[in-house]
Amino acid sequence: MNKTTVIRKEHFNSAHRLHNPNWSDEKNLSFYGKCNNPNFHGHNYDLEVMVTGEVDMESGYLIDMKVLSDIIKEEVLDAFDHKNLNLDVPDFKNLNPTAENIIVVIYKKLRKKLNPKFELKIKLYETERNIVVYPA
Amino acid sequence: MNKTTVIRKEHFNSAHRLHNPNWSDEKNLSFYGKCNNPNFHGHNYDLEVMVTGEVDMESGYLIDMKVLSDIIKEEVLDAFDHKNLNLDVPDFKNLNPTAENIIVVIYKKLRKKLNPKFELKIKLYETERNIVVYPA
Amino acid sequence: MNKTTVIRKEHFNSAHRLHNPNWSDEKNLSFYGKCNNPNFHGHNYDLEVMVTGEVDMESGYLIDMKVLSDIIKEEVLDAFDHKNLNLDVPDFKNLNPTAENIIVVIYKKLRKKLNPKFELKIKLYETERNIVVYPA
Amino acid sequence: MNKTTVIRKEHFNSAHRLHNPNWSDEKNLSFYGKCNNPNFHGHNYDLEVMVTGEVDMESGYLIDMKVLSDIIKEEVLDAFDHKNLNLDVPDFKNLNPTAENIIVVIYKKLRKKLNPKFELKIKLYETERNIVVYPA
Amino acid sequence: MNKTTVIRKEHFNSAHRLHNPNWSDEKNLSFYGKCNNPNFHGHNYDLEVMVTGEVDMESGYLIDMKVLSDIIKEEVLDAFDHKNLNLDVPDFKNLNPTAENIIVVIYKKLRKKLNPKFELKIKLYETERNIVVYPA
Amino acid sequence: MNKTTVIRKEHFNSAHRLHNPNWSDEKNLSFYGKCNNPNFHGHNYDLEVMVTGEVDMESGYLIDMKVLSDIIKEEVLDAFDHKNLNLDVPDFKNLNPTAENIIVVIYKKLRKKLNPKFELKIKLYETERNIVVYPA
Repeated sequence: MNKTTVIRKEHFNSAHRLHNPNWSDEKNLSFYGKCNNPNFHGHNYDLEVMVTGEVDMESGYLIDMKVLSDIIKEEVLDAFDHKNLNLDVPDFKNLNPTAENIIVVIYKKLRKKLNPKFELKIKLYETERNIVVYPA
Repeated sequence: MNKTTVIRKEHFNSAHRLHNPNWSDEKNLSFYGKCNNPNFHGHNYDLEVMVTGEVDMESGYLIDMKVLSDIIKEEVLDAFDHKNLNLDVPDFKNLNPTAENIIVVIYKKLRKKLNPKFELKIKLYETERNIVVYPA
Repeated sequence: MNKTTVIRKEHFNSAHRLHNPNWSDEKNLSFYGKCNNPNFHGHNYDLEVMVTGEVDMESGYLIDMKVLSDIIKEEVLDAFDHKNLNLDVPDFKNLNPTAENIIVVIYKKLRKKLNPKFELKIKLYETERNIVVYPA
Repeated sequence: MNKTTVIRKEHFNSAHRLHNPNWSDEKNLSFYGKCNNPNFHGHNYDLEVMVTGEVDMESGYLIDMKVLSDIIKEEVLDAFDHKNLNLDVPDFKNLNPTAENIIVVIYKKLRKKLNPKFELKIKLYETERNIVVYPA
Repeated sequence: MNKTTVIRKEHFNSAHRLHNPNWSDEKNLSFYGKCNNPNFHGHNYDLEVMVTGEVDMESGYLIDMKVLSDIIKEEVLDAFDHKNLNLDVPDFKNLNPTAENIIVVIYKKLRKKLNPKFELKIKLYETERNIVVYPA
Repeated sequence: MNKTTVIRKEHFNSAHRLHNPNWSDEKNLSFYGKCNNPNFHGHNYDLEVMVTGEVDMESGYLIDMKVLSDIIKEEVLDAFDHKNLNLDVPDFKNLNPTAENIIVVIYKKLRKKLNPKFELKIKLYETERNIVVYPA
């Protein structure tokens, strides 16, 4: 029997700054450019959570999208939305909040709450033109 | 030689209701929530049909998109568009029209009409935020 | 002082059927085409509520978007979302739920709840390609 | 002769915080909710600049869109993009950066640079669902 | 009684070149830049046709969207789609196909076919970021 | 360690014509339809460049998106944007510029410039409804 993927889209708005504390200020500015602004900038992040598995024949659902949406809200939106990722979110206390790092944090948070029988993949839009997928 | 995928987007508008006749009305309402409304609700479904194979060197086409569009129209749009999936579409006489079930019906309809040399995958948007892919 | 407009987008999914009870079945079918399907079809309706007035200098808000969103939810979404407009919504008991008629019903519901100092305009997307604005 | 409007879309990403220094912290938190987060949050702002006037018969242009785009870049994007509106942009030193206030600042910056023969209107998307237009 | 606006979106793909035959090649290249390429370039044009008037109480329609769509197809899409505006469309034999000029041509074509009781306005997207509205 | 994919979206506007010089004019017209117009037509092409590999722990980047964007600009946009693919782009001197062929040309141009440790995949939107992915 073929597997199916369901995708739920959610959204959060956050401030962040890209900075590597092991680098000089000059190297940070040179490497991260305007993303290194010490006063932060921000984004409307669009999040797609992709869950893959076998559809339950009785309900016709892979997973209840309301349940999936609630998990995303509790694990990600409540923690990230209208927050400063660097200052307000403990996961980024020692982790640079690049899109590549944010998506792994989101993956781990959701993986813990999701039934192990499901495969999980995340797609994160930092802007309309810069997007990350994990795992590839 | 690497394979290529072409994607054709189409659209249909349908009414439906989620209901399992083997369950009590209470269980149906509790499980499907407002999607269980006995008078139906509806959606603008966006459909992406993904066909994978080798490009024909002479024409430069994987498949003629006009031909693919006509197959989708005859097999899916003519059957589903401006219809009540539960009442008007025989495929759902004994099948609950969840997005997960609709997409398998669409897959089977198109698979029969498509040259077996092509792989087929379907993506169905029930809303902008609830999406299904089959096979995963 | 110039006025400002704020726009709040919301969304609902409904079933409906276009039918004029004063016309014969033949005329209804001929005029409304597939929108006359007696078993209904449905749409993902996108709604833009445009409120115009003077910005409050103290708060920097024209109107609190959370308050506006709550009004839309209570007046429109709770009444229309996952409903059959013809069967479940009393406003359409004797009114054909064309987009042109739906938008006037929405306008009247919101106009009653909105401070009279504000001007109100509504935009309703029945599909991506069919849209109505009221008042013009 | 009828007038024509041309619209140019641009984009910037900023951090901001809503706060009225004349109010108590309690009132600020109660009124602005999570938008009052002292550590800021952020948005991908989409900007539409609408310029109205008579088309030049010789060039067939109302205004050269490259010139318009350069004005927007110099006046708005260079000042706002990847910045903290509260801390980095002098216009908001004593002005709460609500969407309603941001759009007036943008309007004034562009109005100064635009030929007085043109009418100007701005549309600012703070999110996909919260939008402001000035002047109404 | 308030008026209502209905909007129908259509689409065409065309090649064009911006060129003023009264100017030198140098001036054309300097003014129109890469849009002056003698071998043409092209666009996916999105077209919104806005019709304003009073809704017919009997049908609940302002205008039958199928009729409006057919008029647009016959007057605009059949003439412009998959065409070279400069070479294939007589309207641009002596008229530079800037977006500002294209939209007036479209307006005149549709105005002739539309009942005079309706007001007409057109919105033309040359790209996602360059848009024209006529009349303003 | 799992791999990550980053996606960068870019855009170009081009004219083209589908034509096989080994076929008669009749066969070309019959097969390619209006895409065979000898005077060309055109499109707004949207391009997604997907790069897969391991994230660099020090920078938190898979690849600097500014660097990736510059490579796309130099290799693809400078060659294709506001050009006639058939007449201005040497790659299509003897290659029919179908979407399936364009995407392989883009893939080869970018593959040469990209570090071999990265996997590369391209998605090309010829219109909103016709899309190609390579390699599948």
